[in-house]
Amino acid sequence: MLPSWRPGATRDAVVTFLDALGDVAPGDRVAMFDNDGTLWCERPTYPQFDFFVDRLAAAVGERPELAERPEYAAVLTGDQAAIGALGLARVALALLELFEGQTPAVYDASVRAFFDHAPHRSLGRPLRSMVYQPMLELLDALRQRDVDVFIVSGGGVEFVRAISQRLYGVPADRVVGTAIRYRYERQDGAPTLLRTAELDGAPNEGPAKIEALQRHLGRRPILAAGNSLGDRELLEYAQASQPSLALLIDHDDADREFDYASEAGTITGDEPITDIGRREGWAVVSIRHDWSTVFPDD
Amino acid sequence: MLPSWRPGATRDAVVTFLDALGDVAPGDRVAMFDNDGTLWCERPTYPQFDFFVDRLAAAVGERPELAERPEYAAVLTGDQAAIGALGLARVALALLELFEGQTPAVYDASVRAFFDHAPHRSLGRPLRSMVYQPMLELLDALRQRDVDVFIVSGGGVEFVRAISQRLYGVPADRVVGTAIRYRYERQDGAPTLLRTAELDGAPNEGPAKIEALQRHLGRRPILAAGNSLGDRELLEYAQASQPSLALLIDHDDADREFDYASEAGTITGDEPITDIGRREGWAVVSIRHDWSTVFPDD
Repeated sequence: MLPSWRPGATRDAVVTFLDALGDVAPGDRVAMFDNDGTLWCERPTYPQFDFFVDRLAAAVGERPELAERPEYAAVLTGDQAAIGALGLARVALALLELFEGQTPAVYDASVRAFFDHAPHRSLGRPLRSMVYQPMLELLDALRQRDVDVFIVSGGGVEFVRAISQRLYGVPADRVVGTAIRYRYERQDGAPTLLRTAELDGAPNEGPAKIEALQRHLGRRPILAAGNSLGDRELLEYAQASQPSLALLIDHDDADREFDYASEAGTITGDEPITDIGRREGWAVVSIRHDWSTVFPDD
Repeated sequence: MLPSWRPGATRDAVVTFLDALGDVAPGDRVAMFDNDGTLWCERPTYPQFDFFVDRLAAAVGERPELAERPEYAAVLTGDQAAIGALGLARVALALLELFEGQTPAVYDASVRAFFDHAPHRSLGRPLRSMVYQPMLELLDALRQRDVDVFIVSGGGVEFVRAISQRLYGVPADRVVGTAIRYRYERQDGAPTLLRTAELDGAPNEGPAKIEALQRHLGRRPILAAGNSLGDRELLEYAQASQPSLALLIDHDDADREFDYASEAGTITGDEPITDIGRREGWAVVSIRHDWSTVFPDD
């Protein structure tokens, strides 16, 4: 069990939790995983951003004038200063316009097609292979113990859902994420949903994550795993259960992955999530020390 | 199989659909059921309304001045004209205030407790026994064929979810319904969700039903069952699949249940849903003719 987890306090905390599941009623066995930086690599850029760039490049191929729009120009040239000046939210909403009017099926197919070929930006391997092997092993161990596994992502729900079964074995209806609004219309008499470029509610981060999961399943998790300040409430919410496991990934391995866990505090002035996690008694995963393998192809 | 379904065209349509499921990939086997009037009896009043009245009576017992509020006075006296004059939406929102500040766990427990004792208003039997036996048999037949069964109700998602496993064998996270907003706060340092009296989005009726299920699971149903104009888009959405089953319950049995299917058109001027169903080629269930048993205790 858990072959890619090195012996030590973190693995012990995970195993102790798994062993305690026998005392939990099957209906209460609910686990929640953040996605970016928790189940797959989010550096140097979010995979969803890579997808948007891929689709933007394709759109510009057909309509070159799109490249002149400031939000798109900043993305195409990778000008982080320009993106920062415009604001990431404005840039993200502009990118959502690329998919306006698409049916869910068309969007879903384009995400799947992207993962068939997209490489990771700096490591060159297929993007779909940038999932954390130790977390896949944990998902398996949970399922073997009849735990219902959900993904609660800040990413777009349809984006994550398109690959959740393929990459993680998590069915589409067990993904909660940031949602967009749909436009309902009849086409040739048949009811049709078409994407808009507007969000439906707030981005799925922070307290919004636990509100969204209340709406989606109305059960409290006994395990939550995350890696950023946007996961804090989710981990605290799970930790209130008994038994419980609050698992925080500390990205501290520049050799095999990336080293950035302490950056957030530096940029925003917030207390780093790793400091919060250690104070709260969460199981903090040091990628460098606790994982013998990071990616399945290592 | 389906012992409470009498032989005939409706049962044949259901069996033909069940037999065709072998040609459908397991991941595409998705069925959606409306709740009120489709899985359980909605007359003379919605069970959720009965629950609200029960909780209102308890609240008035502690705070008699509540009975003077016009919305509550109309409900307590059963004055349908006064409810109509105030508007059902305003009355419903006033009733939601009874639960403001409750945690999800407290609300859930009070719904469960209500169903432990509540009788049906006119038939006297336990409210929890007012589920349609033939539909329970259909749910079983679907599950035996690895169909994922969801409830898509206009009722409150937490209300339906509290009893969905007990009454229908449908897990809490497979219920989609009208949602309320939560207030997030920390109590003694622990993240807590508290009910507000505001809806989160539109009531889950009509086109909102298919938008909600897109957000919740992102898969298209191949079976949809309903009984009112609020289910029209849901049934049409399912009918676009191949194979598909659009099942409409026609409440035409005053002796064993209620006879009201054609009322809606009379009141609002809309075309009756049963007329739409017959024109669209849906399988229209005549309770009088197609069901040998209506309720499990019959």
